[in-house]
Amino acid sequence: MTDRYELTMIDAAMQAGTAFRPSVFEAFGRRLSGGRRYGVVAGTGRLLDRIEQFSFTDAQLKFLREGNVVSPEALDYLADYKFTGRIRGYAEGEPYFPGSPLLTVEGTFAECVVLETVILSILNYDSAVATAASRMVTAAGTRPVAEMGSRRTGEESAVAAARAAYIAGFTNTSNLEAGIRWGIPTMGTAAHSFTLLHDSEEDAFRAQIDALGVGTTLLVDTYDTARGVDLAVKVAGTELGGVRLDSGDLPIMAARTREQLDALGAKNTLITVTSDLDEHAIAGLAASPVDAYGVGTSVVTGSGTPASGMVYKLVAREGDEGWKSVAKASENKASHGGEKLAVRTLEDGVAVEETIFMGDPTKDDAADASRGRGLQVDLVRGGAIADEYRGAAGVAKAREHRKNAVAELPIVAHRLRPGDPAIPTVFR
Amino acid sequence: MTDRYELTMIDAAMQAGTAFRPSVFEAFGRRLSGGRRYGVVAGTGRLLDRIEQFSFTDAQLKFLREGNVVSPEALDYLADYKFTGRIRGYAEGEPYFPGSPLLTVEGTFAECVVLETVILSILNYDSAVATAASRMVTAAGTRPVAEMGSRRTGEESAVAAARAAYIAGFTNTSNLEAGIRWGIPTMGTAAHSFTLLHDSEEDAFRAQIDALGVGTTLLVDTYDTARGVDLAVKVAGTELGGVRLDSGDLPIMAARTREQLDALGAKNTLITVTSDLDEHAIAGLAASPVDAYGVGTSVVTGSGTPASGMVYKLVAREGDEGWKSVAKASENKASHGGEKLAVRTLEDGVAVEETIFMGDPTKDDAADASRGRGLQVDLVRGGAIADEYRGAAGVAKAREHRKNAVAELPIVAHRLRPGDPAIPTVFR
Repeated sequence: MTDRYELTMIDAAMQAGTAFRPSVFEAFGRRLSGGRRYGVVAGTGRLLDRIEQFSFTDAQLKFLREGNVVSPEALDYLADYKFTGRIRGYAEGEPYFPGSPLLTVEGTFAECVVLETVILSILNYDSAVATAASRMVTAAGTRPVAEMGSRRTGEESAVAAARAAYIAGFTNTSNLEAGIRWGIPTMGTAAHSFTLLHDSEEDAFRAQIDALGVGTTLLVDTYDTARGVDLAVKVAGTELGGVRLDSGDLPIMAARTREQLDALGAKNTLITVTSDLDEHAIAGLAASPVDAYGVGTSVVTGSGTPASGMVYKLVAREGDEGWKSVAKASENKASHGGEKLAVRTLEDGVAVEETIFMGDPTKDDAADASRGRGLQVDLVRGGAIADEYRGAAGVAKAREHRKNAVAELPIVAHRLRPGDPAIPTVFR
Repeated sequence: MTDRYELTMIDAAMQAGTAFRPSVFEAFGRRLSGGRRYGVVAGTGRLLDRIEQFSFTDAQLKFLREGNVVSPEALDYLADYKFTGRIRGYAEGEPYFPGSPLLTVEGTFAECVVLETVILSILNYDSAVATAASRMVTAAGTRPVAEMGSRRTGEESAVAAARAAYIAGFTNTSNLEAGIRWGIPTMGTAAHSFTLLHDSEEDAFRAQIDALGVGTTLLVDTYDTARGVDLAVKVAGTELGGVRLDSGDLPIMAARTREQLDALGAKNTLITVTSDLDEHAIAGLAASPVDAYGVGTSVVTGSGTPASGMVYKLVAREGDEGWKSVAKASENKASHGGEKLAVRTLEDGVAVEETIFMGDPTKDDAADASRGRGLQVDLVRGGAIADEYRGAAGVAKAREHRKNAVAELPIVAHRLRPGDPAIPTVFR
């Protein structure tokens, strides 16, 4: 989980006597990729586990030694590596905006820089999924949305995606491992292969109902959807739990299927749709008689924005002349150095500004800060990790937090069209 | 690595007496997502490891039991699960086209269906990366391309992406774990934080050169690129290995930097560029004095196509009336049932058609097949995995295979604009 340059930088800095300068790194996004109106921070709980486990095995040290990647002195340092610093950051589930100081990592240069890749991998991917998922949840209104995209992303990313989507308000997931690791409710219907396995669609429906009861959801579009619906009600009766449509023009198919189910007396049988949905398709089905959505590819790939574009930068460090704020100055990528205090400024309970106080806040600043909600929480102190943000409890907390914090955003935040962030970020 | 419905389908099929019907599943893509001219199969070696390890732990079985996911009979089956069937497929690194039978999995319905998610997760992600990477490699011509995108995808996907990009012809990766697991050459330069850590850019350059020698690559755009280049040559001398440009307008910056380096006498100092490159940006730099490319976000996210869109379908199974080809008939998703023999038909060494022979080939078919190269290899037989496709040796073999097989494609395959597949797929 480390890029080679992190280790060679530590090596070079050790030789130059600068490796253990107290330093502050910050993870932030310069913009909201894809013209999103807001982002949703996700991955924090996973990241805390990774930081706790972060160390170098004998096999890894051997690889570094035999490949002459770093000097013996640097190898000794890495062999004993353990993060002992402090990490503050936005709570998991928190909306964020360009320049929001999402994670502030304090420690020696060496212990902070080596975490760069793992911090960014997790925050960039998980937040991309949560950001897309949050738009889908809003577009779905009161209808439930299931995450079914495991097969469209790397096999470990699949578990992370299920987790991030659930934090962003999805109802459940098809991914069983996400159920085991993070306590997320799991669901499932059946695949076309199950119908094709049997000698007839009727045999397949009967087999599924015998095993799972009439409350199950039958996939009715393997051969002909209208005949599939007829058959489903014939086999299961009017108490059939649901039917799933996975192909065709969904608004038309949903309307026809609802009419057909009602005519057959299956008025309580729900319609789930699952074919290549994203937030726009979900919004387009708002007036259709759909009861639940299943989303695959688009949620696990961030709906066109598969990486959030966050970066991890040194913003302050102690040198021979004491603490110094630092920032890269090259074109198009100006950064704000120094430590920051982040506040979501509210008016009548509605967010109006992401306010970032730089350096030591003044008395006026403190008065301004009191008009909003402080956004940073302690995640790691002296190497000890705050347990409340971890495990299944951390996921549940993050899901609740996202719900409440998104409710604070102005209505423009929910526009699906690409555009400006819902509130401005102001550095004070 | 399993979707819930795979297990409930096994359960229902066991109760219906159909779970152990001999079955054939096939993984294929209905189209080349993103208007690609060809795809590149990747992930096969990783998949073989996953299939060998595929089983259910006590904790997983406990979760399934306590959650009433499946019946006790199904739990017993899963507790003893081991894939004992046969898998044939395209060799890793092989180009593919719509409908190419990428993986054919034979066994009982139960043992095949439970692998659906892991097969698709790996093939969809790894092939998306390899397909994008192959375009970048072609666009780069003889110049080397390094994979540096670990921070822009999930932390395990990062290792898979480094592997897939290398198979597609990338020269090396920043990801150390990919070096350890798959024998891929690793590389690295330095980050802006390293410059900012030091009291001056000069101190930073000196520290890096002291540790890594003058052959290293210095990052020269932290403050002002022209002054950075001056300083780099002043500190390292004219034997400086390279400079890296990570911001600004790259064609202009590269030209200016080359002029400046030459004027300073550093005629052999190489220029590496790394700022938000994709295949189009690489092609746009063809006439610029660039010596090497580093690619991040775009390669690990499939350059706009983060999932390959492959599906895994039941294509044949034995029933009461013997073997039967099966396919779903619903709108827009017509599939071709049955087992297939895939041949890349060549004329004068150039691919002209992806020929898929269905069912039992006739004598005429056999004559036609002899005009090309058979595309399917044995990957698993009777549960035993072909070792030649695994580990670092498998990666090296796949990289070589991709190079030779891409060389067979017609020139239109290398057009970057979205369009039709380079050769048609013909079912005979």
